[in-house]
Formats: sequence, structure tokens, C-alpha cells
Amino acid sequence: MERTLFEPEHELFRESYQKFLAQHVAPNHEKWEEQNIVDRDVWVEAGKQGFLGTAVPEEFGGGGVKDFRYNAIITEETTKGGFSGIGFTLHNDVVAPYLLELTNEEQKQRWLPGFASGELISAIAMTEPGTGSDLQGIKTKAVRDGDHWVLNGSKTFITNGINADIIIVVACTDPDKGAQGFSLLVVERDMPGFERGRNLDKIGMKAQDTAELSFTDVRVPAANLLGEEGMGFFYLMKNLPQERLSIAVVAAAAMESVLESTIQYCRDRKAFGKSIGSFQNTRFVLAELATETTAVRILVDKFIEQLNAEKLTVQEAAMAKWWTTEAQVKLIDRCLQLHGGYGYMKEYPVAKAYMDSRVQTIYGGTTEIMKEIIGRSLNL
Amino acid sequence: MERTLFEPEHELFRESYQKFLAQHVAPNHEKWEEQNIVDRDVWVEAGKQGFLGTAVPEEFGGGGVKDFRYNAIITEETTKGGFSGIGFTLHNDVVAPYLLELTNEEQKQRWLPGFASGELISAIAMTEPGTGSDLQGIKTKAVRDGDHWVLNGSKTFITNGINADIIIVVACTDPDKGAQGFSLLVVERDMPGFERGRNLDKIGMKAQDTAELSFTDVRVPAANLLGEEGMGFFYLMKNLPQERLSIAVVAAAAMESVLESTIQYCRDRKAFGKSIGSFQNTRFVLAELATETTAVRILVDKFIEQLNAEKLTVQEAAMAKWWTTEAQVKLIDRCLQLHGGYGYMKEYPVAKAYMDSRVQTIYGGTTEIMKEIIGRSLNL
Ligand SMILES: Cc1cc2nc3c(=O)[nH]c(=O)nc-3n(C[C@H](O)[C@H](O)[C@H](O)COP(=O)(O)OP(=O)(O)OC[C@H]3O[C@@H](n4cnc5c(N)ncnc54)[C@H](O)[C@@H]3O)c2cc1C
Ligand SMILES: Cc1cc2nc3c(=O)[nH]c(=O)nc-3n(C[C@H](O)[C@H](O)[C@H](O)COP(=O)(O)OP(=O)(O)OC[C@H]3O[C@@H](n4cnc5c(N)ncnc54)[C@H](O)[C@@H]3O)c2cc1C
Repeated sequence: MERTLFEPEHELFRESYQKFLAQHVAPNHEKWEEQNIVDRDVWVEAGKQGFLGTAVPEEFGGGGVKDFRYNAIITEETTKGGFSGIGFTLHNDVVAPYLLELTNEEQKQRWLPGFASGELISAIAMTEPGTGSDLQGIKTKAVRDGDHWVLNGSKTFITNGINADIIIVVACTDPDKGAQGFSLLVVERDMPGFERGRNLDKIGMKAQDTAELSFTDVRVPAANLLGEEGMGFFYLMKNLPQERLSIAVVAAAAMESVLESTIQYCRDRKAFGKSIGSFQNTRFVLAELATETTAVRILVDKFIEQLNAEKLTVQEAAMAKWWTTEAQVKLIDRCLQLHGGYGYMKEYPVAKAYMDSRVQTIYGGTTEIMKEIIGRSLNL
Repeated sequence: MERTLFEPEHELFRESYQKFLAQHVAPNHEKWEEQNIVDRDVWVEAGKQGFLGTAVPEEFGGGGVKDFRYNAIITEETTKGGFSGIGFTLHNDVVAPYLLELTNEEQKQRWLPGFASGELISAIAMTEPGTGSDLQGIKTKAVRDGDHWVLNGSKTFITNGINADIIIVVACTDPDKGAQGFSLLVVERDMPGFERGRNLDKIGMKAQDTAELSFTDVRVPAANLLGEEGMGFFYLMKNLPQERLSIAVVAAAAMESVLESTIQYCRDRKAFGKSIGSFQNTRFVLAELATETTAVRILVDKFIEQLNAEKLTVQEAAMAKWWTTEAQVKLIDRCLQLHGGYGYMKEYPVAKAYMDSRVQTIYGGTTEIMKEIIGRSLNL
């Protein structure tokens, strides 16, 4: 399908990112899968080549262009290569907006250069062992003490959790104020009382460090508050749509790439003297999946345009998140089936995609929570 | 649901097998998952306690009872414990009938005592790199030379492939005779020219050795032919229904056990101040899955009765195979979703079930091949 989203400068960017992946990621990813974490130097190399903080102003070493199409290109190519350990998408799509829009000049000076150079790897910590979907139910709290916030609590499932140098932590700063009682604090590596727990053992995304974090009387300087006290929940609600669209960008790219390799497999593999693609069932299954992939692509590209024009609604982002990821999980399952026994072998890309993708309908807000958000808007 | 399939003696057998699992399997299974193979001594212990070759006559050290309900109990309990590395089901349900029904007295003397004692671990090798569904397309061939068959070819995806001491190999013995050109040869450990390839790296079933095998001018004694020359395909067709029902027994047990643990999880886990089981979506999803689990259980128990009465048709076995395994894969996927982020963590049983189960719709004949078998019988 023809895509009209990109200009020539985007395609040049795509080519250079593909080169970067081929040179610095592809040769190492298997090793990273074994060690359950990527080496930090891939971040620094990505920073040097301009793939981190494309939206960060040039004076801080960033790309200076706020255009989500660049983010999408990074996510698409990373996904197509199966490089699920690379946490750039979280850094660029999820964390960047907080550091760009909520920071004062002093904070920008402190964090943005490292953010863009790859020396400061970022994470965002909302989820806790006891609560994920119900963000307002979090127990991590911060109490003001002079020039500091004293932070206590624990977080889990935090992407980039082991490598991260700066972590945006959602904490309750006023339990009496309900949704107005949350604030965002930036916790930095080596703050006393901040500890990392296990690097969690997941079904897939083996090279991605997803970790438990704990905070015991961590004295976070007041200067590390992002935006205003009590506005944390509001900021999250504002930024979650971009995170969700970003997950839909993964879904669309994964669908395209798994569909393509499966079609090729069905052309090549023979059974009963013909290609398995010649059986009517195969053709019908692939016809359905090709149709769904096209529909997903059109929706995602349309919503990227809307996001760029600041016109993507919370409901639309929720639609993109659940619908594309459920389609992705289904497609990969059906494509695995078409591979027969080989689909169950880890060396086949479809098997890796199967394990990597299953979390897509869960993180960034589950399918069920997305349907709640959409359902609430229908005036039922 | 009440099950009427079993008599008191079966329940005693179940209890003793549960004890065996708790004592000899549970403490070791994680280690076996890491080493990608079970230790041989668990086979010997199982043999000693009477869990191998229940249908083997007592004079050869077996249980002396041909009653598939005993097989089903072993499969059910193995499945419920998540002990997917244990290859007893293949040994008892798939291989045993060949060794019992096609062997002459001399062969019985040679193989059955070890088969029942756990000293001879068995496997059956049909699939080849180039062909799985299309059994008649296999290339492995055996040429008669005096008192021997000279065997050449390669097999893949062979369950128990590394541990196996005796392997029933399907080979073409007369390429001109089509379906009448296949024979079954028993290859034994240490026959010159028989080599094992890789222990394959799978999505799940990590403790199960699934291997490539190769045969280069292996001189198999004529005394190792099973049944009659040229009847191999016919024997396979006769025995595949029991193999397929056996896979459906796994499906039913996995569904029951994952459903049960998920219901418990949904009772315990809180979000938005209530249990996640209190949300209508959760209740509807689980209501549907409970209904499907009941339907699967009823069908499987009914077909076990029919198999025992030698009344299970090829079409019915095909129905059981595809329908229960597709239901299993779907149920586990839905239950994983209800676990939120925890569903993606390997330590949760639902995550392990997710990885272990995906092959169920593929091996023993794919869903598509089962539908072909059923479809062919509909006089379309
Ligand atoms: C690999 C991975 C990476 C992650 N990365 C991050 C990260 O970087 N930062 C971060 O903060 N978090 C992260 N998460 C956490 C993720 O966002 C949460 O797991 C997710 O939001 C779900 O929360 P939960 O796991 O607590 O599930 P729960 O909230 O316990 O939900 C359990 C089930 O109940 C359902 N449910 C809940 N409420 C309702 C309702 N009202 N109606 C119907 N059904 C409902 C859910 O949909 C789900 O099926 C990550 C998770 C994973 C697995
Ligand atoms: C873990 C594991 C254990 C196994 N254990 C054993 C074992 O112990 N012994 C053994 O011999 N084999 C074993 N197998 C092999 C298994 O039985 C085969 O993988 C299976 O039969 C499918 O064959 P295939 O992989 O060659 O797929 P193919 O035959 O190449 O099929 C590829 C796809 O095409 C579809 N297809 C094929 N023909 C048709 C048709 N006519 N119409 C429509 N669709 C069609 C299939 O359904 C499938 O989706 C095992 C496999 C695995 C993964």
C-alpha cells in the first residue's frame, strides 16, 4: 500500500536509521537477548547519530524538530528488525514530552543534553505491584521536607528500569486531594535509598530490561519536581495518547513485517506437491490478515497526522491502542500456525514475534481500559 | 463438573501418580527446563512405580491393563502440574500401541521389559525437514540388503529425540508403491550411522527434548521391522487417532487448570477498589471460557470411552484434536490477558502455559489437516 505520510527528508532519515541498526544493533541483539539488557554504548551511538531526542531543541544537542513521523520511523524500523530490546521508543515517544514541556530552564540544562546524547537513559514509573490499570490507586508517596521530597514506595514492570539514569516517578504528594494529589518527580541514578530489584523474566522482549524499583526515604531535591505539584495525573492524561499511538505504530509495523515473511514462507513451502499458499484456507487466512493490516496501517498513519496537528483525541488514541494490538496478536498467531512446526522454533522470526508481541495488549493501558475510555465517551 | 469416566481404582492410580510427580518431578522440572532435557532416572523411577506401559502384559513387567483411562490420568496430572518436559504420554499413548500390536514374540522379549521399566525410552519419527503434514512425501528410505535394511534420511521435530533408545522410523521401502511403499523400522541407540542433531530451541516445552535425527547407511536388522513390509502407512493411520485424542486430553486438562487459576486470580486481584472479577467483561469472558471448558471436557471423556470400546473414528479423533486445542490456545490467551502485566512474566503459570501450549494445534496433525480429514468425510 502506498503511504503518503512521509516527505523525502523522512526517507533519508529512515535510511540512515536502517544503517545504524544494521551496524550497531543487528550484530549485538542476540547477545543482548542472552544478557537481558542492551549495552549502554548503543544508546550513546544512537545519540551521536541523532536518533535520540529528535524533538529536543538544537541548543541542547537534539534534532530540533517536533515531528512524530521521525519517532514513527525509529519505531517502525526497530520493530521490523525484531530489535525489541531497544528502548528508544519509550525514551523518544513517552518520556521526551515530559522533559520538553514540563521542565524549567535549569532542568532543561541538566537533563536534555544527556537525554539527546544517550548518556542519560530514561524511564517512567507509574505501575506498582498492587496497581497498574488503576493509576489513582498508587501507594508511592512523597512528603515535602524543606528543599526535598522524601520518597517511599515501589514500582514494577519499568521499561529501561535497570539501565535508566533518570526516572520520572509518579508519586502521591497529597492523599486528600484525589486526582489532584499526584506529582512527577525525577529520580536520578545513585540517589541514596533508590534501589533496583529484579530484571524481570518475561515471555519475550528478552533484551529489554523491565525492572522492579524501590524507594526508601529517597531525598529528591525539590528542583526535580516536573511541572507543578498536584498536576501529575493531569500531565499523564495529556501524554498517554502519544504513548498509546506509539504502541499502535509498533503493531502496524509488526503486522506488515510478519505478514510479508509469512506470505513468502507460504510461497516457498511445499506440501502435497504444491506450495502451501495454494491451499484455499491459506489464501483466505492471508487475505483476511492482509486486509486487516491495510486497515491498521491507514488508521495509524491518519492518527500520526492528527497527533502532529495536535488533533488526536484521548478516545482515538485508545481506539488505536486496543484495536491495532489485538489485530497484531491475532495476526502473529495465525501466521505462526501457517509455519507448521517451524513456527514453534525460536529461530523463526514469527516465533520471536509471537513472544515479543503478547504484551502489546497489556502495557500502556490494557485493551479493557481502552474500551472503558471509549465506552465512557459514548454517553451510554 | 462431575465426571463419570473413572472407577475407584483409577482414582487410586491418580493419587499415586500425583505423589510420584510431587516427589520426583516437581523438585526437578525447573532444572530440566534449563538443561532442555529431563534426567533419565525419572523414567526409571516412573517405570518402577508402574506408570510406563500400563497396557504392556504383566509377563513383560507392564501393568497388563489396556484401558486408556490410565493413560489419560497420567496426561492430565502431568499437564496440570505444567510438567511439559515429561514425555510419558508419547511413550504410553503414541508408541506403545505399535510395540504391542505389531511385534512378534522375539521383539516383545527384546523391547517390552525395557519399555515398561523406563530403561528404553521411545520415540516415533515421521516428520522430515521437508515434510510434515504430507506424510506420503517423506524421503527417508530403506533398501533391503540381506538380513538388513540400509536406512538413509533425516527426521526433525522428534519428541524424546535426544533421550530415546528405540525409535520407530517411518521409511519408504518401495518408492513405486505409493501409500503401500512405507515400512516401520525400529532404530536403536548406537547403531552406526545414526546421529542426533540439534536439540531444538522452542517457544515452550523447554524440558522436552525435540530433536533432529539423521541416518546415514544405518544397517537396521530385518528383525527390527515392525509388522509387515509396506504396511507402515496403514499402521500410522490406525494409530494416529489415539495420538490425537491424547493431545485433546492435554488440551482439556490445561484448560481446566488455567481456568481455575485465573478465576482465583480474578477473585484476588483488585483494581479500582474491587476485585477484577467483579467487572462485567471479566465475568463474561470467564463465563464463555468456563462453558467451552465444560464442552471440551464432555467431548474428551466421551471419546475416551469410545476409544476404550474401539469405537473412536478417524473423523471423531480429528474433531477432538483441532477443536480442543484451538479452544485451549484461545483460553490461555484470554486468561493471560486477565492477568495484566503479570501474565507476561514467566513465573506465572499462565505465562508458562502460553508458551507450552502453542504447539498443540500443530503437532500430531495441524488444525488444517484435521479439518481436511473431517471435510473429506462430508461427501462434499
Ligand atoms: C513488559 C512490560 C513493560 C511495562 N513498562 C512499563 C513502564 O515503563 N512504566 C510503567 O509505569 N508501567 C509499565 N508496565 C506496566 C503496564 O502498564 C501494566 O501492566 C498495565 O497497565 C496493566 O496493569 P496491571 O498489570 O496492574 O494489571 P491490572 O490493572 O491488575 O489488570 C488485570 C486485568 O484486569 C483488567 N481490568 C482492570 N480494570 C478493569 C476495568 N475497570 N474493567 C475491566 N477490566 C479491568 C485489566 O484489563 C487486566 O486484564 C509494563 C508492563 C509490562 C508487562
Ligand atoms: C514440539 C514438536 C514436537 C513434535 N514431535 C514429533 C514427533 O515426535 N514425531 C514426528 O514425527 N513429528 C513430530 N512433530 C512434527 C509435527 O507433527 C509437524 O510439525 C506437523 O505435522 C506439521 O508439519 P510441518 O511442520 O511440516 O508443517 P507443513 O506440513 O509444512 O504445514 C505448514 C502449514 O501448511 C498447512 N497445510 C499443509 N497442508 C495443507 C492442506 N492440504 N490444506 C491446508 N493447509 C495445509 C499446515 O496446516 C500448516 O499450517 C513435532 C513438532 C513439534 C513442533
